[in-house]
Amino acid sequence: MSGQPDFFAVVRSQRAHRAFGDDPVPDELVERLLETATYAPSAENTQPWVFIVVRDPVAREQIGELNRRAWEGGGRDFSRPRLSPRMFAKVEAGATGGVADAPVLIVVCGDTSSCVETVLESSVWPAVQNLLLGAHALGLGSALTTITTVFGDELRSLLTLPDHIRPLAVVPLGWPAAQLGPPKRDPVAEKTFREHYGEPWAR
Amino acid sequence: MSGQPDFFAVVRSQRAHRAFGDDPVPDELVERLLETATYAPSAENTQPWVFIVVRDPVAREQIGELNRRAWEGGGRDFSRPRLSPRMFAKVEAGATGGVADAPVLIVVCGDTSSCVETVLESSVWPAVQNLLLGAHALGLGSALTTITTVFGDELRSLLTLPDHIRPLAVVPLGWPAAQLGPPKRDPVAEKTFREHYGEPWAR
Repeated sequence: MSGQPDFFAVVRSQRAHRAFGDDPVPDELVERLLETATYAPSAENTQPWVFIVVRDPVAREQIGELNRRAWEGGGRDFSRPRLSPRMFAKVEAGATGGVADAPVLIVVCGDTSSCVETVLESSVWPAVQNLLLGAHALGLGSALTTITTVFGDELRSLLTLPDHIRPLAVVPLGWPAAQLGPPKRDPVAEKTFREHYGEPWAR
Repeated sequence: MSGQPDFFAVVRSQRAHRAFGDDPVPDELVERLLETATYAPSAENTQPWVFIVVRDPVAREQIGELNRRAWEGGGRDFSRPRLSPRMFAKVEAGATGGVADAPVLIVVCGDTSSCVETVLESSVWPAVQNLLLGAHALGLGSALTTITTVFGDELRSLLTLPDHIRPLAVVPLGWPAAQLGPPKRDPVAEKTFREHYGEPWAR
Protein backbone atom coordinates (compact mmCIF):
# COMPACT_ATOMS: atom_id res chain seq x y z
CA MET A 1 0.00 0.00 0.00
CA SER A 2 1.27 3.47 -0.74
CA GLY A 3 0.02 7.02 -0.68
CA GLN A 4 -2.43 7.35 2.21
CA PRO A 5 -3.50 3.84 3.11
CA ASP A 6 -7.11 3.58 4.26
CA PHE A 7 -7.33 2.64 7.93
CA PHE A 8 -9.99 -0.05 7.57
CA ALA A 9 -8.36 -1.57 4.49
CA VAL A 10 -5.10 -1.94 6.43
CA VAL A 11 -6.83 -3.53 9.42
CA ARG A 12 -8.91 -5.95 7.40
CA SER A 13 -5.97 -7.35 5.43
CA GLN A 14 -3.34 -7.75 8.17
CA ARG A 15 -1.72 -11.19 8.15
CA ALA A 16 1.24 -12.81 9.90
CA HIS A 17 4.25 -13.04 7.56
CA ARG A 18 6.86 -15.72 8.19
CA ALA A 19 8.79 -15.64 4.88
CA PHE A 20 10.74 -12.64 3.62
CA GLY A 21 12.73 -11.46 0.64
CA ASP A 22 16.30 -10.19 0.80
CA ASP A 23 15.63 -6.51 0.21
CA PRO A 24 16.85 -4.36 3.10
CA VAL A 25 14.58 -2.40 5.42
CA PRO A 26 16.20 0.99 6.02
CA ASP A 27 16.49 2.53 9.49
CA GLU A 28 14.11 5.30 8.42
CA LEU A 29 11.28 2.80 7.94
CA VAL A 30 12.08 1.00 11.19
CA GLU A 31 12.03 4.30 13.04
CA ARG A 32 8.74 5.33 11.43
CA LEU A 33 7.19 2.04 12.59
CA LEU A 34 8.55 2.38 16.11
CA GLU A 35 7.12 5.88 16.25
CA THR A 36 3.80 4.43 15.09
CA ALA A 37 4.06 1.93 17.95
CA THR A 38 4.58 4.66 20.53
CA TYR A 39 1.25 6.33 19.75
CA ALA A 40 -0.52 3.42 21.43
CA PRO A 41 -2.10 3.95 24.84
CA SER A 42 -0.50 2.71 28.06
CA ALA A 43 -1.48 2.77 31.73
CA GLU A 44 -1.15 6.37 32.91
CA ASN A 45 0.85 7.06 29.73
CA THR A 46 3.86 5.30 31.30
CA GLN A 47 4.98 4.04 27.85
CA PRO A 48 6.78 1.00 29.32
CA TRP A 49 7.86 -0.33 25.90
CA VAL A 50 11.50 -0.93 25.00
CA PHE A 51 12.60 -1.97 21.52
CA ILE A 52 15.82 -3.75 20.57
CA VAL A 53 16.39 -3.61 16.80
CA VAL A 54 18.48 -6.63 15.80
CA ARG A 55 20.09 -6.69 12.35
CA ASP A 56 23.31 -8.59 13.08
CA PRO A 57 23.09 -11.94 11.24
CA VAL A 58 24.81 -13.82 14.07
CA ALA A 59 22.40 -12.46 16.68
CA ARG A 60 19.44 -13.19 14.40
CA GLU A 61 20.67 -16.74 13.98
CA GLN A 62 20.99 -17.11 17.76
CA ILE A 63 17.46 -15.85 18.27
CA GLY A 64 16.33 -18.20 15.50
CA GLU A 65 18.02 -21.04 17.36
CA LEU A 66 16.06 -20.20 20.55
CA ASN A 67 12.93 -20.18 18.41
CA ARG A 68 13.76 -23.62 17.01
CA ARG A 69 14.57 -25.03 20.46
CA ALA A 70 11.31 -23.73 21.91
CA TRP A 71 9.41 -25.14 18.95
CA GLU A 72 11.08 -28.53 18.97
CA GLY A 73 11.07 -28.72 22.78
CA GLY A 74 7.32 -28.42 23.11
CA GLY A 75 5.69 -25.95 20.72
CA ARG A 76 5.51 -28.40 17.84
CA ASP A 77 3.82 -31.18 19.80
CA PHE A 78 1.47 -28.67 21.37
CA SER A 79 0.51 -27.06 18.07
CA ARG A 80 0.26 -30.05 15.73
CA PRO A 81 -3.15 -31.31 16.90
CA ARG A 82 -4.51 -27.77 17.24
CA LEU A 83 -3.72 -26.39 13.77
CA SER A 84 -4.80 -27.25 10.26
CA PRO A 85 -2.04 -29.11 8.37
CA ARG A 86 -1.54 -26.05 6.17
CA MET A 87 -1.20 -23.62 9.05
CA PHE A 88 1.00 -26.06 10.97
CA ALA A 89 3.39 -26.23 7.99
CA LYS A 90 3.58 -22.42 7.86
CA VAL A 91 4.20 -22.06 11.58
CA GLU A 92 6.79 -24.85 11.50
CA ALA A 93 8.62 -23.21 8.57
CA GLY A 94 8.57 -19.89 10.43
CA ALA A 95 9.78 -21.36 13.73
CA THR A 96 12.61 -23.34 12.16
CA GLY A 97 13.91 -20.73 9.76
CA GLY A 98 11.76 -18.03 8.22
CA VAL A 99 11.28 -15.74 11.18
CA ALA A 100 15.01 -15.39 11.85
CA ASP A 101 15.62 -14.90 8.11
CA ALA A 102 13.87 -11.55 8.27
CA PRO A 103 16.43 -8.77 7.80
CA VAL A 104 15.26 -7.10 11.00
CA LEU A 105 14.07 -8.59 14.28
CA ILE A 106 12.46 -6.19 16.71
CA VAL A 107 12.56 -7.59 20.22
CA VAL A 108 9.79 -5.88 22.14
CA CYS A 109 10.26 -5.66 25.90
CA GLY A 110 8.38 -4.26 28.87
CA ASP A 111 10.07 -2.05 31.44
CA THR A 112 8.84 -3.38 34.79
CA SER A 113 10.21 -0.33 36.59
CA SER A 114 7.80 1.97 34.69
CA CYS A 115 4.48 0.54 35.85
CA VAL A 116 2.91 -2.13 38.02
CA GLU A 117 3.23 -5.63 36.60
CA THR A 118 -0.52 -6.16 36.30
CA VAL A 119 -0.77 -3.49 33.59
CA LEU A 120 2.52 -4.20 31.81
CA GLU A 121 1.05 -6.39 29.09
CA SER A 122 -1.99 -4.19 28.48
CA SER A 123 0.49 -1.33 28.09
CA VAL A 124 2.81 -3.02 25.59
CA TRP A 125 0.68 -5.18 23.24
CA PRO A 126 -1.30 -2.23 21.84
CA ALA A 127 2.03 -0.71 20.76
CA VAL A 128 3.01 -4.01 19.15
CA GLN A 129 -0.29 -4.03 17.24
CA ASN A 130 0.39 -0.47 16.03
CA LEU A 131 3.80 -1.67 14.84
CA LEU A 132 2.34 -4.63 12.94
CA LEU A 133 -0.41 -2.54 11.37
CA GLY A 134 2.06 0.19 10.43
CA ALA A 135 4.34 -2.36 8.78
CA HIS A 136 1.42 -3.67 6.75
CA ALA A 137 0.37 -0.13 5.80
CA LEU A 138 3.85 0.37 4.30
CA GLY A 139 3.80 -2.98 2.48
CA LEU A 140 6.17 -4.67 4.92
CA GLY A 141 5.50 -8.06 6.45
CA SER A 142 5.71 -8.84 10.16
CA ALA A 143 4.32 -11.17 12.79
CA LEU A 144 3.70 -11.28 16.51
CA THR A 145 5.78 -14.13 17.94
CA THR A 146 6.25 -14.90 21.62
CA ILE A 147 7.61 -18.46 21.65
CA THR A 148 11.24 -17.34 22.06
CA THR A 149 10.40 -15.87 25.45
CA VAL A 150 10.21 -19.45 26.75
CA PHE A 151 13.99 -18.98 26.85
CA GLY A 152 13.74 -15.55 28.44
CA ASP A 153 17.06 -15.89 30.28
CA GLU A 154 18.96 -16.74 27.09
CA LEU A 155 17.28 -13.87 25.24
CA ARG A 156 18.09 -11.58 28.14
CA SER A 157 21.73 -12.62 28.04
CA LEU A 158 21.98 -12.30 24.26
CA LEU A 159 20.59 -8.76 24.30
CA THR A 160 22.21 -7.75 27.64
CA LEU A 161 18.81 -6.92 29.10
CA PRO A 162 18.89 -5.77 32.73
CA ASP A 163 16.57 -7.46 35.22
CA HIS A 164 13.82 -4.87 34.96
CA ILE A 165 13.47 -5.26 31.17
CA ARG A 166 11.27 -8.23 30.30
CA PRO A 167 11.33 -9.58 26.73
CA LEU A 168 7.77 -10.12 25.51
CA ALA A 169 7.87 -10.60 21.74
CA VAL A 170 10.10 -11.03 18.72
CA VAL A 171 8.68 -9.26 15.67
CA PRO A 172 10.35 -10.19 12.36
CA LEU A 173 10.23 -7.39 9.80
CA GLY A 174 10.92 -7.59 6.08
CA TRP A 175 9.46 -7.38 2.61
CA PRO A 176 6.98 -10.24 2.20
CA ALA A 177 8.08 -13.20 0.07
CA ALA A 178 4.46 -13.57 -1.00
CA GLN A 179 1.21 -11.66 -0.80
CA LEU A 180 -1.30 -13.29 1.52
CA GLY A 181 -5.08 -13.42 1.20
CA PRO A 182 -7.52 -11.99 3.71
CA PRO A 183 -7.45 -13.31 7.30
CA LYS A 184 -9.99 -15.91 8.42
CA ARG A 185 -11.97 -14.93 11.49
CA ASP A 186 -14.99 -16.13 13.37
CA PRO A 187 -18.05 -13.89 13.02
CA VAL A 188 -18.57 -11.18 15.62
CA ALA A 189 -21.84 -12.78 16.72
CA GLU A 190 -19.95 -15.87 17.92
CA LYS A 191 -17.75 -13.79 20.22
CA THR A 192 -20.19 -11.18 21.45
CA PHE A 193 -22.94 -11.07 24.02
CA ARG A 194 -25.51 -8.45 24.97
CA GLU A 195 -25.59 -7.13 28.53
CA HIS A 196 -24.35 -10.40 30.01
CA TYR A 197 -22.65 -13.64 29.00
CA GLY A 198 -25.01 -16.01 27.23
CA GLU A 199 -27.37 -13.40 25.80
CA PRO A 200 -26.84 -13.46 22.01
CA TRP A 201 -25.63 -10.35 20.23
CA ALA A 202 -27.60 -11.14 17.09
CA ARG A 203 -31.22 -10.11 17.50
CA MET B 1 -12.90 11.51 10.46
CA SER B 2 -15.04 10.35 7.60
CA GLY B 3 -14.64 8.97 4.11
CA GLN B 4 -11.51 6.81 4.05
CA PRO B 5 -9.51 7.79 7.11
CA ASP B 6 -5.75 7.68 6.55
CA PHE B 7 -4.13 4.94 8.61
CA PHE B 8 -1.23 7.00 9.96
CA ALA B 9 -3.44 10.00 10.70
CA VAL B 10 -5.72 7.79 12.81
CA VAL B 11 -2.82 6.25 14.72
CA ARG B 12 -1.05 9.54 15.40
CA SER B 13 -4.12 11.24 16.87
CA GLN B 14 -5.54 8.47 19.08
CA ARG B 15 -6.32 9.67 22.60
CA ALA B 16 -8.15 8.24 25.63
CA HIS B 17 -11.62 9.74 25.99
CA ARG B 18 -13.27 9.83 29.39
CA ALA B 19 -16.14 12.28 28.76
CA PHE B 20 -18.97 11.64 26.34
CA GLY B 21 -22.03 13.31 24.88
CA ASP B 22 -25.55 11.87 25.01
CA ASP B 23 -25.87 10.87 21.35
CA PRO B 24 -26.52 7.15 20.94
CA VAL B 25 -24.08 4.74 19.33
CA PRO B 26 -26.10 2.37 17.11
CA ASP B 27 -25.54 -1.39 17.13
CA GLU B 28 -24.26 -1.19 13.54
CA LEU B 29 -21.31 0.93 14.60
CA VAL B 30 -20.60 -1.27 17.62
CA GLU B 31 -20.62 -4.34 15.41
CA ARG B 32 -18.34 -2.70 12.84
CA LEU B 33 -15.85 -1.91 15.61
CA LEU B 34 -16.02 -5.42 17.05
CA GLU B 35 -15.38 -6.80 13.57
CA THR B 36 -12.41 -4.45 13.32
CA ALA B 37 -11.18 -5.89 16.62
CA THR B 38 -11.39 -9.45 15.36
CA TYR B 39 -8.93 -8.81 12.52
CA ALA B 40 -6.13 -8.62 15.08
CA PRO B 41 -3.66 -11.50 15.34
CA SER B 42 -3.83 -14.09 18.11
CA ALA B 43 -1.73 -17.12 19.07
CA GLU B 44 -2.41 -19.80 16.45
CA ASN B 45 -5.44 -17.76 15.36
CA THR B 46 -7.31 -18.97 18.46
CA GLN B 47 -9.22 -15.65 18.67
CA PRO B 48 -9.76 -15.95 22.44
CA TRP B 49 -11.59 -12.62 22.73
CA VAL B 50 -15.11 -12.32 24.11
CA PHE B 51 -17.05 -9.07 24.15
CA ILE B 52 -19.94 -8.12 26.40
CA VAL B 53 -21.75 -5.04 25.11
CA VAL B 54 -23.37 -3.26 28.05
CA ARG B 55 -25.97 -0.57 27.38
CA ASP B 56 -28.29 -1.05 30.37
CA PRO B 57 -28.00 2.09 32.54
CA VAL B 58 -28.26 0.10 35.78
CA ALA B 59 -25.46 -2.28 34.75
CA ARG B 60 -23.33 0.65 33.58
CA GLU B 61 -23.87 2.34 36.92
CA GLN B 62 -22.84 -0.86 38.73
CA ILE B 63 -19.67 -1.12 36.66
CA GLY B 64 -19.05 2.56 37.32
CA GLU B 65 -19.40 1.85 41.03
CA LEU B 66 -16.72 -0.88 40.81
CA ASN B 67 -14.55 1.61 38.98
CA ARG B 68 -15.04 4.19 41.76
CA ARG B 69 -14.36 1.65 44.50
CA ALA B 70 -11.15 0.50 42.82
CA TRP B 71 -10.07 4.09 42.35
CA GLU B 72 -10.90 5.21 45.87
CA GLY B 73 -9.59 1.99 47.40
CA GLY B 74 -6.09 2.36 46.03
CA GLY B 75 -5.89 3.68 42.49
CA ARG B 76 -6.17 7.31 43.51
CA ASP B 77 -3.39 7.20 46.11
CA PHE B 78 -1.22 5.22 43.71
CA SER B 79 -1.75 7.60 40.81
CA ARG B 80 -1.69 11.00 42.49
CA PRO B 81 2.09 11.26 42.90
CA ARG B 82 2.71 9.71 39.48
CA LEU B 83 0.56 11.95 37.28
CA SER B 84 0.59 15.62 36.41
CA PRO B 85 -2.19 17.50 38.25
CA ARG B 86 -4.01 17.97 34.93
CA MET B 87 -3.89 14.30 33.97
CA PHE B 88 -4.78 13.25 37.52
CA ALA B 89 -7.92 15.41 37.37
CA LYS B 90 -8.95 13.80 34.07
CA VAL B 91 -8.36 10.27 35.30
CA GLU B 92 -10.20 11.03 38.54
CA ALA B 93 -13.18 12.46 36.66
CA GLY B 94 -13.22 9.38 34.41
CA ALA B 95 -12.94 6.91 37.28
CA THR B 96 -15.64 8.56 39.37
CA GLY B 97 -18.16 9.19 36.65
CA GLY B 98 -17.26 9.80 33.03
CA VAL B 99 -16.34 6.29 31.96
CA ALA B 100 -19.63 4.78 33.11
CA ASP B 101 -21.51 7.71 31.55
CA ALA B 102 -20.56 6.43 28.09
CA PRO B 103 -23.67 5.10 26.33
CA VAL B 104 -21.88 1.79 25.67
CA LEU B 105 -19.40 -0.14 27.77
CA ILE B 106 -17.62 -2.99 26.03
CA VAL B 107 -16.26 -5.44 28.57
CA VAL B 108 -13.44 -7.30 26.84
CA CYS B 109 -12.70 -10.77 28.17
CA GLY B 110 -10.28 -13.58 27.41
CA ASP B 111 -11.46 -17.16 26.98
CA THR B 112 -8.94 -19.22 28.94
CA SER B 113 -10.25 -22.44 27.38
CA SER B 114 -9.13 -21.28 23.90
CA CYS B 115 -5.40 -20.95 24.46
CA VAL B 116 -2.67 -21.34 27.07
CA GLU B 117 -2.70 -18.64 29.71
CA THR B 118 0.77 -17.35 28.84
CA VAL B 119 -0.45 -16.10 25.45
CA LEU B 120 -3.92 -14.94 26.50
CA GLU B 121 -3.01 -11.29 26.94
CA SER B 122 -0.87 -11.10 23.79
CA SER B 123 -3.89 -12.54 21.97
CA VAL B 124 -6.49 -10.10 23.30
CA TRP B 125 -4.83 -6.65 23.63
CA PRO B 126 -4.10 -6.31 19.90
CA ALA B 127 -7.83 -6.75 19.28
CA VAL B 128 -8.56 -4.09 21.89
CA GLN B 129 -6.16 -1.72 20.14
CA ASN B 130 -7.93 -2.38 16.82
CA LEU B 131 -11.21 -1.53 18.56
CA LEU B 132 -9.86 1.73 19.97
CA LEU B 133 -8.29 2.76 16.66
CA GLY B 134 -11.45 1.85 14.76
CA ALA B 135 -13.56 3.95 17.13
CA HIS B 136 -11.27 6.91 16.58
CA ALA B 137 -11.36 6.39 12.81
CA LEU B 138 -15.15 6.74 12.97
CA GLY B 139 -15.00 9.81 15.21
CA LEU B 140 -16.03 7.94 18.36
CA GLY B 141 -14.19 8.24 21.66
CA SER B 142 -13.01 5.31 23.74
CA ALA B 143 -10.38 4.34 26.26
CA LEU B 144 -8.56 1.28 27.51
CA THR B 145 -9.39 0.87 31.20
CA THR B 146 -8.45 -2.10 33.36
CA ILE B 147 -8.94 -0.83 36.92
CA THR B 148 -12.39 -2.45 37.29
CA THR B 149 -10.81 -5.90 36.96
CA VAL B 150 -9.46 -5.40 40.50
CA PHE B 151 -12.99 -6.49 41.37
CA GLY B 152 -12.99 -9.34 38.87
CA ASP B 153 -15.36 -11.49 40.92
CA GLU B 154 -17.97 -8.74 41.13
CA LEU B 155 -17.64 -8.03 37.41
CA ARG B 156 -17.93 -11.75 36.72
CA SER B 157 -21.08 -11.97 38.80
CA LEU B 158 -22.63 -8.85 37.23
CA LEU B 159 -22.08 -10.18 33.70
CA THR B 160 -22.69 -13.87 34.55
CA LEU B 161 -19.24 -14.80 33.25
CA PRO B 162 -18.36 -18.51 33.59
CA ASP B 163 -15.05 -19.43 35.20
CA HIS B 164 -13.15 -19.75 31.94
CA ILE B 165 -14.00 -16.21 30.80
CA ARG B 166 -11.64 -13.69 32.35
CA PRO B 167 -12.57 -9.99 32.25
CA LEU B 168 -9.59 -7.93 31.09
CA ALA B 169 -10.82 -4.45 30.18
CA VAL B 170 -13.77 -2.09 30.19
CA VAL B 171 -13.84 0.09 27.08
CA PRO B 172 -16.27 3.03 27.24
CA LEU B 173 -17.58 4.04 23.84
CA GLY B 174 -19.40 7.22 22.89
CA TRP B 175 -19.23 10.45 20.95
CA PRO B 176 -16.50 12.60 22.50
CA ALA B 177 -17.59 15.53 24.66
CA ALA B 178 -14.52 17.40 23.41
CA GLN B 179 -11.87 17.07 20.75
CA LEU B 180 -8.45 16.28 22.17
CA GLY B 181 -5.06 17.41 20.94
CA PRO B 182 -2.27 15.11 19.80
CA PRO B 183 -0.88 12.54 22.27
CA LYS B 184 2.37 13.26 24.11
CA ARG B 185 4.98 10.56 23.72
CA ASP B 186 8.66 10.08 24.47
CA PRO B 187 10.88 10.05 21.36
CA VAL B 188 11.64 6.69 19.76
CA ALA B 189 15.36 7.14 20.49
CA GLU B 190 14.65 7.06 24.25
CA LYS B 191 12.95 3.69 23.99
CA THR B 192 15.04 1.96 21.35
CA PHE B 193 18.42 0.25 21.28
CA ARG B 194 20.52 -1.17 18.49
CA GLU B 195 21.49 -4.86 18.61
CA HIS B 196 21.51 -4.96 22.41
CA TYR B 197 20.32 -3.03 25.43
CA GLY B 198 22.42 0.07 26.09
CA GLU B 199 23.57 0.67 22.50
CA PRO B 200 21.85 3.89 21.35
CA TRP B 201 19.48 3.80 18.41
CA ALA B 202 20.43 7.33 17.30
CA ARG B 203 23.69 7.29 15.34
